[in-house]
Amino acid sequence: MSDPTPNGAQSLIRTLVDSGVEVCFANPGTSEMHFVAALDEVPGMRAVLGLFEGVVTGAADGYARIAGKPACILLHLGPGLGNGFANLHNARRAHTPIVNIVGDHATYHKRFDAPLESDIDAVAGAVSTWVHRSMTSESAPTDGARAVAEAMRSPGGVATLILPADVCWLESTPPAAPVMPQPPAIVPQEVVDAAARALRSDGSSVLFLGGRTLDERGQRAALRIAAATGAKVFGEVFPRVQRRGAGVPVVERLTYLAEFAQMQLGDATSMVLVDVPEPASFFAYPGKPSSLVPEGCAVSTLATGTDDAVAALEALADALGAPDDVPVAEAGRPERPTGELTIESVASAIGALLPENAIVIDEAQTSGIFNQGATAGAPPHDWLTLTGGAIGIGVPLALGASIAAPDRPVLNLQADGSAMYTLQGWWSQAREGTNVTTVIYNNSSYAILRMELARVGADEPGPQALGMLDLARPDLDFVQLAQGMGVAAERAQTAEEFTEALERALANDGPNLIEAIVPPLGL
Amino acid sequence: MSDPTPNGAQSLIRTLVDSGVEVCFANPGTSEMHFVAALDEVPGMRAVLGLFEGVVTGAADGYARIAGKPACILLHLGPGLGNGFANLHNARRAHTPIVNIVGDHATYHKRFDAPLESDIDAVAGAVSTWVHRSMTSESAPTDGARAVAEAMRSPGGVATLILPADVCWLESTPPAAPVMPQPPAIVPQEVVDAAARALRSDGSSVLFLGGRTLDERGQRAALRIAAATGAKVFGEVFPRVQRRGAGVPVVERLTYLAEFAQMQLGDATSMVLVDVPEPASFFAYPGKPSSLVPEGCAVSTLATGTDDAVAALEALADALGAPDDVPVAEAGRPERPTGELTIESVASAIGALLPENAIVIDEAQTSGIFNQGATAGAPPHDWLTLTGGAIGIGVPLALGASIAAPDRPVLNLQADGSAMYTLQGWWSQAREGTNVTTVIYNNSSYAILRMELARVGADEPGPQALGMLDLARPDLDFVQLAQGMGVAAERAQTAEEFTEALERALANDGPNLIEAIVPPLGL
Repeated sequence: MSDPTPNGAQSLIRTLVDSGVEVCFANPGTSEMHFVAALDEVPGMRAVLGLFEGVVTGAADGYARIAGKPACILLHLGPGLGNGFANLHNARRAHTPIVNIVGDHATYHKRFDAPLESDIDAVAGAVSTWVHRSMTSESAPTDGARAVAEAMRSPGGVATLILPADVCWLESTPPAAPVMPQPPAIVPQEVVDAAARALRSDGSSVLFLGGRTLDERGQRAALRIAAATGAKVFGEVFPRVQRRGAGVPVVERLTYLAEFAQMQLGDATSMVLVDVPEPASFFAYPGKPSSLVPEGCAVSTLATGTDDAVAALEALADALGAPDDVPVAEAGRPERPTGELTIESVASAIGALLPENAIVIDEAQTSGIFNQGATAGAPPHDWLTLTGGAIGIGVPLALGASIAAPDRPVLNLQADGSAMYTLQGWWSQAREGTNVTTVIYNNSSYAILRMELARVGADEPGPQALGMLDLARPDLDFVQLAQGMGVAAERAQTAEEFTEALERALANDGPNLIEAIVPPLGL
Repeated sequence: MSDPTPNGAQSLIRTLVDSGVEVCFANPGTSEMHFVAALDEVPGMRAVLGLFEGVVTGAADGYARIAGKPACILLHLGPGLGNGFANLHNARRAHTPIVNIVGDHATYHKRFDAPLESDIDAVAGAVSTWVHRSMTSESAPTDGARAVAEAMRSPGGVATLILPADVCWLESTPPAAPVMPQPPAIVPQEVVDAAARALRSDGSSVLFLGGRTLDERGQRAALRIAAATGAKVFGEVFPRVQRRGAGVPVVERLTYLAEFAQMQLGDATSMVLVDVPEPASFFAYPGKPSSLVPEGCAVSTLATGTDDAVAALEALADALGAPDDVPVAEAGRPERPTGELTIESVASAIGALLPENAIVIDEAQTSGIFNQGATAGAPPHDWLTLTGGAIGIGVPLALGASIAAPDRPVLNLQADGSAMYTLQGWWSQAREGTNVTTVIYNNSSYAILRMELARVGADEPGPQALGMLDLARPDLDFVQLAQGMGVAAERAQTAEEFTEALERALANDGPNLIEAIVPPLGL
């Protein structure tokens, strides 16, 4: 440290580094300038600039899902937090640990209601599990240590620390010692035994998994339970991370379309929840039920997010005397596709080429329906999804995941409309030299909304309604958009072109983008 | 209407149209699909799609600043509102009337805490003067009429109507009659007389103007008052709209840099505020005062935002027996510049070519400091600024202004870093065929933050800090970014190239962008 008496920013950053926080995703302004200056004065914190706050917040989500520990974020007052809100919402739904630092006016400046003054606390409360305002430079280090512990408290969450400018610039105290996060609770044996009875009961039973249970350990325990009880096992529709691929015990996910999810759940009479809420449809539809719990089905809970849910699954498997051997996904890849470029041939190319231990960022929406099938037998990999439904997660999630695991290939399967919310992330991917390959499905539409318009019963849409779902007039040129931010890009119009482009992109370090011109899914 | 019994969305839209709302800036999702379908079933509402919600909210601000009446906005639940938050914050600071419709889950669906569920009310409260949730389809029309009146209530504000999906799709009642907004209050004569005494008092006095008083009527009255009293007159730093140009009575604006603003205000002993808060610095700086009111200066208020402030200024001028004649800006333009392309030569070209009755959208930040001087004698025009300090307003503000006044040329003077927050607006400019010319100042940096880093006293920044202020590595190519969204674009590297490009762009209909490669302001 350059100065024997640290200021608030310096002591806070040192505390964060000591607590294991190594990366700061930032889009700062004037009120954060002392924090920014301190990034050089304290060793150990890597600063990554995003040109829009949604990039910053989505990157912190992707980083923590892969690193298993939080990054910090640096945002500029209420409007900066607003711009970062949607991807913090997704992170909240993923239970991602994030230390969300929101700079604010100096404590004594707030009463002037300067133009950037707004109710930061109200906005932060809607996406955070913990909100605290540092009021003095002396308390900043201990506030920082507590923020890390609150972010890491099981199941993980967004801990927001509001940081006034003068708290940063005034003289502070030495760095605070790290605070151990509260460990997850151990599920009592009687709850485990009750779950065993529920799954053994007459009729068909369902084990429904979410949260952190879709890693390899959790899925293995779940499939052991299925083998012992005959229960069907499903994972939540949009998991934070699912481990999958050849040799991995893989749990089937519930589908987004409620009609199909109801078919999967069938006439279950008993359902056990593990770190997941009761299944419900994503949206309401006129005349259709919101709950997906079959009529008369008894629902019980083995573990919630504050519990060690994976350990609970293993305890349940043991209590059932379940076998250790479970079915795993068989190795196998599709042939390299030829001919027309469709979402199916794109899927085949991905399945044929997906590298070992890849991180797949899936925001492909309707264009992605063949991707899971095509990659089921590919080498083991992690699959990250849009957890909170706020589109615009893919580009930043890929950025953050790649910074957490620079040696792993990251493949972002990205819908066109969704990409446009946070396309600025490509610039950060280029600046940081991330090994991200982006496949853009350019179908010139919000295809999912075309489907949803029909599903809500809005028949025969007129020209204005169709215009709201249409991304043509003018066509978006993603090759230009990516190149304009320093990312190498090319366009593919046939299956051969796409497959060769994907092979080249995966062989290259640094970010690459392939624009796949595909027809929208015909539903 | 296609159906004798309208649903909630149809009756609401009909009510809005009857209340004078003609444009809906939208970025909808599934929960808004019945509203979207109704846009065709009810005549009179033009739907404009934005590919990101910050575009939608900024466009509604630009529209209403020019049209003098609200547009409506259609956003998708909490995350959509979050994405639109920053430009709603700017609109709040501009006192812009906006009917902000935020779609939500169906009333009965909320208890399932589906992935997109969040606390919309909390976020809306931070940017709205009025927040209401429609709970039945029967109340939707009256809620809509009230939202328009609340948006228009002086001085104008963001009226947020939260609209559950089932309120849209269920059968409703006939459209509601428009509600007249509460008119602005008339300032009592004794307040006018007190202001007259304050400005006539010994010592130097200052009349400080904001809100709607920087139109031609307000500025004329203010200059009459100055002529009668010798008071100095200043407009707020970032006005919503200022009328200016040859033949217009123009009030000088206070400068952003507090050091200069203090010099402008001098040793005033009396200050009268008109629809504006006391002058304060934009940010706090170590060791510098936040308030810009000179020591010992008595501050009084002639009118607030709820008053008819322009009428109060005219009453004050009359009470003072002020002359009718006031100085107006003289006609005169700079020469067409030659040689190096700098922010000064860009300003000269703009001054030489600015068309009559143009709408200038100023988000040029540090690159714009010569623009007001260079255009002072240009033909009369309106100047719109970043009112709330949340950068990323320019591109959408230009979109909305152009939709409000399709026959007027719109010139967006746009900083590079700020443009990147809402660049998606170029696509909407292209789709709607708006007559917007964008000048991007590409100086490869957040130049204003370089200045601010020095101003806050953070000396000798290190490489990570400088990296946070630097938009190079990689360079942004705005020609590709604009073309990728269907906007014609070219790059200028000399004053001649820029001037010719600007002349071509202003002569063309439809959006155009010129990327001006300029050195950052050396401060």
